[in-house]
Amino acid sequence: MLHITFIAGEVGHMNDERVVELVHGDGGGATGALIEEVFLPRIGNDSLDAGEDAAAIAGGEDLRFTTDSFVVSPLEFPGGNIGDLAIHGTVNDLAVTGARPKWLSAGFILEEGLPFSVLERVLDTMGRAARRAGIRVVAADTKVVGRGAADGMFINTAGVGTVLPGVRMGFDRIAPGDVIVVTGSVGAHGIAVLSHRAGFSFETPVESDSAPLWPLVGRLLEGVGSGLRFMRDPTRGGLATVLSEMARASGVDIVLEEEALPIDDAIDGATRMLGLDPLYLACEGQAVMVVDASRAPRVLDIIRSTEGPWDPAIIGRASAGEGRAFMSTAMGGTRVIERRRGDPLPRIC
Amino acid sequence: MLHITFIAGEVGHMNDERVVELVHGDGGGATGALIEEVFLPRIGNDSLDAGEDAAAIAGGEDLRFTTDSFVVSPLEFPGGNIGDLAIHGTVNDLAVTGARPKWLSAGFILEEGLPFSVLERVLDTMGRAARRAGIRVVAADTKVVGRGAADGMFINTAGVGTVLPGVRMGFDRIAPGDVIVVTGSVGAHGIAVLSHRAGFSFETPVESDSAPLWPLVGRLLEGVGSGLRFMRDPTRGGLATVLSEMARASGVDIVLEEEALPIDDAIDGATRMLGLDPLYLACEGQAVMVVDASRAPRVLDIIRSTEGPWDPAIIGRASAGEGRAFMSTAMGGTRVIERRRGDPLPRIC
Repeated sequence: MLHITFIAGEVGHMNDERVVELVHGDGGGATGALIEEVFLPRIGNDSLDAGEDAAAIAGGEDLRFTTDSFVVSPLEFPGGNIGDLAIHGTVNDLAVTGARPKWLSAGFILEEGLPFSVLERVLDTMGRAARRAGIRVVAADTKVVGRGAADGMFINTAGVGTVLPGVRMGFDRIAPGDVIVVTGSVGAHGIAVLSHRAGFSFETPVESDSAPLWPLVGRLLEGVGSGLRFMRDPTRGGLATVLSEMARASGVDIVLEEEALPIDDAIDGATRMLGLDPLYLACEGQAVMVVDASRAPRVLDIIRSTEGPWDPAIIGRASAGEGRAFMSTAMGGTRVIERRRGDPLPRIC
Repeated sequence: MLHITFIAGEVGHMNDERVVELVHGDGGGATGALIEEVFLPRIGNDSLDAGEDAAAIAGGEDLRFTTDSFVVSPLEFPGGNIGDLAIHGTVNDLAVTGARPKWLSAGFILEEGLPFSVLERVLDTMGRAARRAGIRVVAADTKVVGRGAADGMFINTAGVGTVLPGVRMGFDRIAPGDVIVVTGSVGAHGIAVLSHRAGFSFETPVESDSAPLWPLVGRLLEGVGSGLRFMRDPTRGGLATVLSEMARASGVDIVLEEEALPIDDAIDGATRMLGLDPLYLACEGQAVMVVDASRAPRVLDIIRSTEGPWDPAIIGRASAGEGRAFMSTAMGGTRVIERRRGDPLPRIC
């Protein structure tokens, strides 16, 4: 798997030298170029190139391995903090590959001057989130850097999970006729962080949906087995990016029904006020899945009967085509869903 | 395993609030207090509390899992850069537990404005180091933060390895009569980074010893098997910290012969000039091992015949006692080796 999602866009220059720009850090975008030119030639291999959320590693069991760094700003936001986000991000990357999250490592980079009270709250939340998801933090490391050399704290988590027997989800299992299910309203995490950062408050506060997708995914796999074709969590880059990647990688068209998309009223209001498209906002506790149409009602039932920030809906379907994602709008038109548009929203996770 | 090595020392205050201080980040120190008060109650469990360099995770094979974050400053230094350091650090944490390093994850945090040329050199070095150690980077993630929110780049690596069949090294296997072997001169990495950071140059330049301990450890295990009792890589906190921890955890005394310690002339000169004690300086390609005395000559032979920055020596022995580490000095005296002394040396790795 390769989580490096650069944006195809202008590349900064400084004294004629190419430099890293904020735009490189946003999770949307059809870059390929930067990943392929800079990262893959140097550290790539079959596993890294495969584009899965968690890489298969050999062993007596079928193991998955994934990593994510968290640099969210501010460290605490409505509905969570960097601690539970760091657990959920990695738990969810394992879960969407059909792996039970089991072991986690945590690397902390702390800025000199970070209040212990913040560190303690983050660790409290992290511990609770790990227990809730049934994952154990088995390895940890902490570094401290001087004031100004980091921004409060950064956390990296890496996770190892075991794939449930017989499970195989993949782009290649997506077929015309399958339906697209989303577990709940999109955009909550992005709005919660952005609005808290900017100091906005809404009549109905928007809280992050930060939550573990395990044991939900385990229940779904038990309930519908191979009826689950493919699953992904729409984090940086949002639902639009996942749908567009799904279509491109499977070669099948994906058609999203705008009116079917579950969006909480509070999120709807906030996105209108801020001029943001919820399709591109990060979720941290939702999954988009491609499901055998005949099993979709059972999938909805299982999600509804599992505790979590969920309000599932069938939002579209796969159809024969050339690997593009479209949206049927409420106005009756159709537009192509691109991987991202608009400015990057840095440090959402 | 828990790599969080805080220093027992004064804790900073800011408006009556405890805050993280640089001293918390140094790898020496007999703190326990901070780890035990802040981290372990929140994210601890049997595996994290065990104090190994890499944690055991269940599976058909005997797997080890470890993590480390790298914040070295400057990013490039004589003998290496943050890229190979990030590979070697995790490879070595696996190797010293007897595990063949197999799969690695890499999480990058890049500061806006980082020159691509630096990123490319780091990734080049990283790729070469991974290939040399026989480990595959199977998962990666990159985040970008704004100028001033990080310092160039930070890298986290997590690694999974498979323990060679029948291997069991541990503190509990250290017994009176065993000898202590070090693979080579101590202090090279610490001196290389500190002197480059400070702009010092020496007549004979000191290069980092940054190197992988695998396949060396694999060869040693093949050659002497259970004759290897315990092994550790002396990174932050240096040889003194490892010897003191070994003695404390095993309950056996460790006596180091000062005159037997291999120290390169260039490192010796540099430490004298800078007023640093090489016993406390970080190595990034050395191991300290406790060996069955009868197998020590074979251990030295194997190290000498393996390519690497090595110049092995028997530097002391284990003897019945109360779990303390001592040094027999060149002057004929004996002093206790404490876990650390002097100021912390931040951002060495």
